[in-house]
Amino acid sequence: MRDAGLQSIRAFAFDAYGTLFDVLSVTSLCEQLFPGTGAALAQLWRVKQLQYSMMRSLMGRHRGFWQLTEDGLVYACKSLGLALTAEARTRLLDAYLSLAAFPDVKPGLEALKALGFQLAMLSNGEPKMLEAAARSAGILALLDHIVSVEEVKIFKPSPRVYNLAPERLSMSNAELGFVSSNSWDAAGAASAGLRTFWIQRSAAEPPEELGFGAERVVHALTDLAPLVRG
Amino acid sequence: MRDAGLQSIRAFAFDAYGTLFDVLSVTSLCEQLFPGTGAALAQLWRVKQLQYSMMRSLMGRHRGFWQLTEDGLVYACKSLGLALTAEARTRLLDAYLSLAAFPDVKPGLEALKALGFQLAMLSNGEPKMLEAAARSAGILALLDHIVSVEEVKIFKPSPRVYNLAPERLSMSNAELGFVSSNSWDAAGAASAGLRTFWIQRSAAEPPEELGFGAERVVHALTDLAPLVRG
Repeated sequence: MRDAGLQSIRAFAFDAYGTLFDVLSVTSLCEQLFPGTGAALAQLWRVKQLQYSMMRSLMGRHRGFWQLTEDGLVYACKSLGLALTAEARTRLLDAYLSLAAFPDVKPGLEALKALGFQLAMLSNGEPKMLEAAARSAGILALLDHIVSVEEVKIFKPSPRVYNLAPERLSMSNAELGFVSSNSWDAAGAASAGLRTFWIQRSAAEPPEELGFGAERVVHALTDLAPLVRG
Repeated sequence: MRDAGLQSIRAFAFDAYGTLFDVLSVTSLCEQLFPGTGAALAQLWRVKQLQYSMMRSLMGRHRGFWQLTEDGLVYACKSLGLALTAEARTRLLDAYLSLAAFPDVKPGLEALKALGFQLAMLSNGEPKMLEAAARSAGILALLDHIVSVEEVKIFKPSPRVYNLAPERLSMSNAELGFVSSNSWDAAGAASAGLRTFWIQRSAAEPPEELGFGAERVVHALTDLAPLVRG
C-alpha cells in the first residue's frame, strides 16, 4: 500500500556493496583457492576494506576503492597465514567486478523503474568497478546515474559523499530516497539530511547505535515499489 | 643496545586502550554476566566502540568515548541476543574504569621514567576515563600528561589528534615517540608526522596495509628503555 509520506520521492539512490552486490559471493572462489578458509578470508577481507576506507578518510590519505580492496585482501591473507600468489590476487580482485547481485535486486529495480522513478548508485567504489559489477549483474541499463565517492575523494559516512546524490541528480533532499543494507550507511545518509531506507536483510540484525535511524525499514529491495506505488 | 637514530627523543606518548590497558580484560565479567558468550561480547563490544569512533568522526557527529563505549555495548548485546539490564550495563561500563594493564606496562614505564623521559597518554578516551584507568592500574603517577581527543572533538586516526601530542608537550616531532599496539594507530601517527613505535604483541599479527609503517617495531613496552638508553 502506498505510503503518503513518501509521495515527494522521484528517485532512489542505492548503496552498491552489500546492498545491490553480495560481497560475500567471493566466498566460493576464496574457498576454492584456500580450502577450509574461504569464509574467514571473505569476511576479513570485507572488514579490512571498509576499515581502511574509514581510516584513510580520517587520515586524509584517500586512495581509490580498488586499491583499498587489494590492500584489504593482502592484509587478510597475511593475517590468516595464506600465501597470496599473483595469480590468486588477480582472480580474487577480478571477482569484485562480477559480484553476484542479491536475488531481489533486479526485480526490485525493475518495479521501481516501471513506476517512473530515476535510479542511481551512490558508492565508495570507483566508476569502473561499479559499471563492471552492474553490467555483470545485468542491472546497468536500469541505472540512470552512477555516483562515486571519487568525485570528493573521501569515503562514507562523510556527508560530502551523501550530498553528491541530490547534487548529481539535481533534486531536493525531499525528492530522493537513499537505500542501503548497511545500517551505518543509512545512519550516515540520515545524518547528512537524506531520506533513508534501510534494507534489513536479516531480522536478527539490530540497527547501529549511531543516533540516526532510517526513515523506513524494509526487508528486500522488492518491498520498495509497493511502498511508493501511486 | 642504544639506537643512535633515537637520541633526539625526550618523551613518549602512549596510546591507552589496547596498548597500556587490556580492553579484553572485561571478558571475565562479560562471561560471568552472560555465560558462554563472554569472549564474543568483549570482542564485538570493542569492534563497535572503535567503528563508532571512526564513523562518528567522518559523520562530523562527535560524542565522548564514554558514550561510544556504551553505544558499542548496547549494539553488541542486541546483536548477540543478550538482555542487558541496567545493572549489567553499569557494571560493564564501570569495568572500563579499572581495566587491567598489560604486565609489561608498569615496568616498561618505570624504566623509561628512570631514564628521564617524559611520559604521556594520547587517547580517544575522555580525561576522566583515562585518569581512572591509570589510577586503577597504578601508573597515574608515572604519567606527566594525559592528552585526550576531547580537545579536538574528533577521533583517531585524524592528524588533528596526533598533532596534540607535540603541542601539549611543547616538543618538536623529532623529540617525541608515539607508541601504540594498534598498528592502524601507529600508521595514523606516522601519517601525521610523528615518530612511531609499534608494540606488536603477537608475532603473528601483520602490520595494517595503510601505507605508513612504524619507525620501530618492538614486542613489549619493556623493549623501549633498552633501545633509548644513553
